[in-house]
Amino acid sequence: MKSETSNRRVVTKNAILESARREIEKSGILGLRVAEVAAGANCSITQIYRYFENRDGLLAAVLGDMYQEILDGSMSSYQSTLFTRHNLTVDDVVDSLPTVLDDNLRLRQAMRLQILAAAVNNPRLERRIAEITQQQFVAWNEGLDELERRLAPGESLDRRVFTMMLATTMPYYRVLMGDAGYTDAEFRQFLKEKLRT
Amino acid sequence: MKSETSNRRVVTKNAILESARREIEKSGILGLRVAEVAAGANCSITQIYRYFENRDGLLAAVLGDMYQEILDGSMSSYQSTLFTRHNLTVDDVVDSLPTVLDDNLRLRQAMRLQILAAAVNNPRLERRIAEITQQQFVAWNEGLDELERRLAPGESLDRRVFTMMLATTMPYYRVLMGDAGYTDAEFRQFLKEKLRT
Repeated sequence: MKSETSNRRVVTKNAILESARREIEKSGILGLRVAEVAAGANCSITQIYRYFENRDGLLAAVLGDMYQEILDGSMSSYQSTLFTRHNLTVDDVVDSLPTVLDDNLRLRQAMRLQILAAAVNNPRLERRIAEITQQQFVAWNEGLDELERRLAPGESLDRRVFTMMLATTMPYYRVLMGDAGYTDAEFRQFLKEKLRT
Repeated sequence: MKSETSNRRVVTKNAILESARREIEKSGILGLRVAEVAAGANCSITQIYRYFENRDGLLAAVLGDMYQEILDGSMSSYQSTLFTRHNLTVDDVVDSLPTVLDDNLRLRQAMRLQILAAAVNNPRLERRIAEITQQQFVAWNEGLDELERRLAPGESLDRRVFTMMLATTMPYYRVLMGDAGYTDAEFRQFLKEKLRT
């Protein structure tokens, strides 16, 4: 009986999270109404408050999950193009980076910005995002270990270009520069020079 | 008579902008209500719509101004510490950069994030921010011209570290890394190496 109850709890909690995500995709973060989430999850508002305490708690859970997916997605798509290969050069490493004008990257950036802005007034969400960032920092370093193992003889990387530069870059700022900014080719050339140790 | 009318218009418009800013500082971007702005500016809601068309137009004007001030403020405080001096070294240039853990910088970053997030659903604000970014890019390059004139003999800068790296950095990401991230000293060392050509 006990495991059946706890199983039902997981089902309800997941239904709430899925409903909240659909609401956010439809009406935006600001437009999220707990009553709509409850209707979409076939549960009561009271149940939502039991699991997530309040609207901010619900947002911290859903937006935290979305933030995690955005970071995981960009890392795994980068690794999947590189980690099937050996004898990588610095040029390969740079040429496989996504371009800032990629539409999918822009959409992810727009969502990432909105989640970060929501965290400014939601301490629980900010803590969750800080945890995700710190796990991501460890994952980046593990990915860089793997990358170094796959480098061609004689090639070497200054890992700080990844951990201190690319990890803190907001590609949207480049988008805002428009034609006044540098080209993608100029940026890749810069990275190639700075990555070589 | 005509100039008196246009003068009164400027006064009303400024009163609306100031009232809107006070409301944003009090209740946040989302909490901004046009009726409150009108009350604070001693004018009617109709007058606000005459000048700014709608709530998004008003937000585009006020948040655009605030965004401009944030960028101008960080540039002028950096330049004021450097542009009184001559015979600058790369070390001076890097050591004068603000640290990411500076409280004022954090507050400015939080506001900047919220303005950028608001721009995602406000095309007029996004256009204004793009214009500001492009003017800023020109101003950065002029500042770098001046910086190069003030360098000590034998010192040189790779300007791309400013235009392609620092101009697109989101220091808040470093804050989120917490103790898992790199230290300020490690970051400055990295910059000094990468700036030397």
